[in-house]
Amino acid sequence: MSLDEDLEDARTAVPVPGVVHPGVRRARVWLSRAVEPGTVDVHRYVEDVGPVEAVRRVRAGTAPERIRGLVGARARQDATLADLTRAERCGARFVVPEDPEWPAYPLHALTVAVADEPLAHRDQSDRTRALVPPIGLWVRGAGRLDLLVDRSVAVVGSRASTAYGEHVAAELGHQLGERGWTVVSGGAFGIDAAAHRGALAAEAPTIAVLACGVDRVYPAANSALLARIAETGMLVSEWPPGCAPLRHRFLVRNRLIAALTRGTVVVEAAARSGAQATANRARDLGRALMVVPGPVTSALSVGCHELLRDSAGGAVLVASAAHVIEAVGGIGTDLAPPPERPTSPRDELPELAARVLDACPVRIGVSAERLASTAGCTVLDVLRVLPSLELADLVQWTGTGWRLAPPPKPHGAAP
Amino acid sequence: MSLDEDLEDARTAVPVPGVVHPGVRRARVWLSRAVEPGTVDVHRYVEDVGPVEAVRRVRAGTAPERIRGLVGARARQDATLADLTRAERCGARFVVPEDPEWPAYPLHALTVAVADEPLAHRDQSDRTRALVPPIGLWVRGAGRLDLLVDRSVAVVGSRASTAYGEHVAAELGHQLGERGWTVVSGGAFGIDAAAHRGALAAEAPTIAVLACGVDRVYPAANSALLARIAETGMLVSEWPPGCAPLRHRFLVRNRLIAALTRGTVVVEAAARSGAQATANRARDLGRALMVVPGPVTSALSVGCHELLRDSAGGAVLVASAAHVIEAVGGIGTDLAPPPERPTSPRDELPELAARVLDACPVRIGVSAERLASTAGCTVLDVLRVLPSLELADLVQWTGTGWRLAPPPKPHGAAP
Repeated sequence: MSLDEDLEDARTAVPVPGVVHPGVRRARVWLSRAVEPGTVDVHRYVEDVGPVEAVRRVRAGTAPERIRGLVGARARQDATLADLTRAERCGARFVVPEDPEWPAYPLHALTVAVADEPLAHRDQSDRTRALVPPIGLWVRGAGRLDLLVDRSVAVVGSRASTAYGEHVAAELGHQLGERGWTVVSGGAFGIDAAAHRGALAAEAPTIAVLACGVDRVYPAANSALLARIAETGMLVSEWPPGCAPLRHRFLVRNRLIAALTRGTVVVEAAARSGAQATANRARDLGRALMVVPGPVTSALSVGCHELLRDSAGGAVLVASAAHVIEAVGGIGTDLAPPPERPTSPRDELPELAARVLDACPVRIGVSAERLASTAGCTVLDVLRVLPSLELADLVQWTGTGWRLAPPPKPHGAAP
Repeated sequence: MSLDEDLEDARTAVPVPGVVHPGVRRARVWLSRAVEPGTVDVHRYVEDVGPVEAVRRVRAGTAPERIRGLVGARARQDATLADLTRAERCGARFVVPEDPEWPAYPLHALTVAVADEPLAHRDQSDRTRALVPPIGLWVRGAGRLDLLVDRSVAVVGSRASTAYGEHVAAELGHQLGERGWTVVSGGAFGIDAAAHRGALAAEAPTIAVLACGVDRVYPAANSALLARIAETGMLVSEWPPGCAPLRHRFLVRNRLIAALTRGTVVVEAAARSGAQATANRARDLGRALMVVPGPVTSALSVGCHELLRDSAGGAVLVASAAHVIEAVGGIGTDLAPPPERPTSPRDELPELAARVLDACPVRIGVSAERLASTAGCTVLDVLRVLPSLELADLVQWTGTGWRLAPPPKPHGAAP
């Protein structure tokens, strides 16, 4: 069936509840190739007249001029069947907003955000910043997209990462995976790859949101990693199969990583880097923005520290998966435990008792008067606290005076 | 002249403007040995009746019972002349609030804080937390105390520091010293020593606030360092010469480090450590609280990260001396420069031009129509931006199509 016939059929068919008409899906497939994601005007037009009508009018030349201008020469082309076939061949499919699987709740933030964009048509000066919902999502993997992203966290960072950053990203990915969180990242070198690998090592699903077709292996050196993600997790892209990872597409893609997840963790980022851009998208969408610090001597942590220094940015420092879960998890249910410190009996002492203990000599016993003078308190005070210090085996009476008790023998040591 | 005669003389003498009566100084010397610093009741009593009268009444047994109880057996002793002689022998003197050199402005924060303490007498449960002004300060060094602390920053941290922490502390000490700031610390091992050394290397004055007499060398291994500080900067203590560095004294001392400076920088701190305590004192006194982050894999940065995670604590992340000066310096005059990133001509391009540039192949030139299709814009858009891209030497016309221009030759390279 030709595209135009399919569209006509979708227009006139009686809707079947719970079933997406093939023409609707095909219209969105067509749009996903004809216009670059993140274009405000096209999104609004599709929302306005529906995908089927939008495609019909663009192809018939009856759509508003600014929409036709954005599609340009591609209005006459049709690669929908080829795209669907190519997707099927690599185990991928095209999920549309009309599907029950559509992650409507997380992506709602984009719908809210695009409503704030100016209505008047003008050249969209920077499409990489507009928060526009996707036309549809090409996904490659066995799971259900909406379930996979329900409890998910993005872990992003520099491609030129350090061993420190990769270690932290892998550790975070692993621990988040173990605790039932889906790790979402960009499938790139460095921090992205380390986070994915950590999740895979925990046998947890992980999602790579790509800036190219889900059948493309980019970067090529990550091909084995991307194949494993497709097997146990999911590859996701707004671009149809075969599309190349053009530079600006990474920036457009970043808003999806931010929107699909409950929060974004930046592990390593150079000054004014792409990871910072993703971080800002997360904040713009009302998501938790979490940042892992690093040595101040590392150029790869400069961007992280800038995010943390920006008091208006609301970034939270995280040093562990527990911190991350505290920030994105349920209120009160996922609190991180406070850091522990070795304690000794003297840590529990009231200040006066600690002072008297400090005043006790190691070897030769001294009088209570001498202790009072050294500790800066009255003899009565000293006599009041000495019994409890003795009971706690902290001081001992030598027969002529008070001194510190010898430290206890290590447990299990020979007598 | 005996202490009691000196006190009597001070009581009846006609005050000479600008001159501190020896009896007043001697009264405070006596108090500095008779009561442990940080005792709220004694401070209030001295404020109330004056140092001379306070000492007279304590010695005569006419002071309130709770004051006499705090002084205890020491009421009858008098080591004032010995203390002054011992101080003089090591080049030290006793600075009192009546001296023009007294750092009244920084220490005013303690006067304000102690006013908040409960008036009702009770056992001061934790003297290490009370923010009480000092009775006087034993100082060893040639400079004027008030001038030295006017533009000063505290740099504190763990004694069991790492090479990373020591490097950062030394670097901060050096750069703060170079920019005319006095580095104040505790003279201890680790971070303290590194900060002092950095300042000394910049030939800048540095102050060690000690928890023992200024003639004591503690820790002994820092003796050369402390001697150099005394020569070019200053050793400061609330305790008279000869006093031992008892454990609780370090905690009492910490409030002075916080009060004397405009802000405190924590470089490395374990979980729930002493450096965190100093940090909290700084915050309680309304001082800037600055924290250097570190690797999240380091136990010595756990305390730092906890301070930065406490959103109510107001701690600011600092990664350089410029950040520190921005936090404690004059508003608007000491702003840290933003981090730099290498820039290229393409960074300056509008988004549409960048997209067209991304669509250009490296080798074989393509048509404007093809560029439009790949870049997701109209042919008109492409034709509009190509001239400026060509002028910027980013694209070139091959005769049959457009492609990327080869990268420029390195400056000064052979043709």
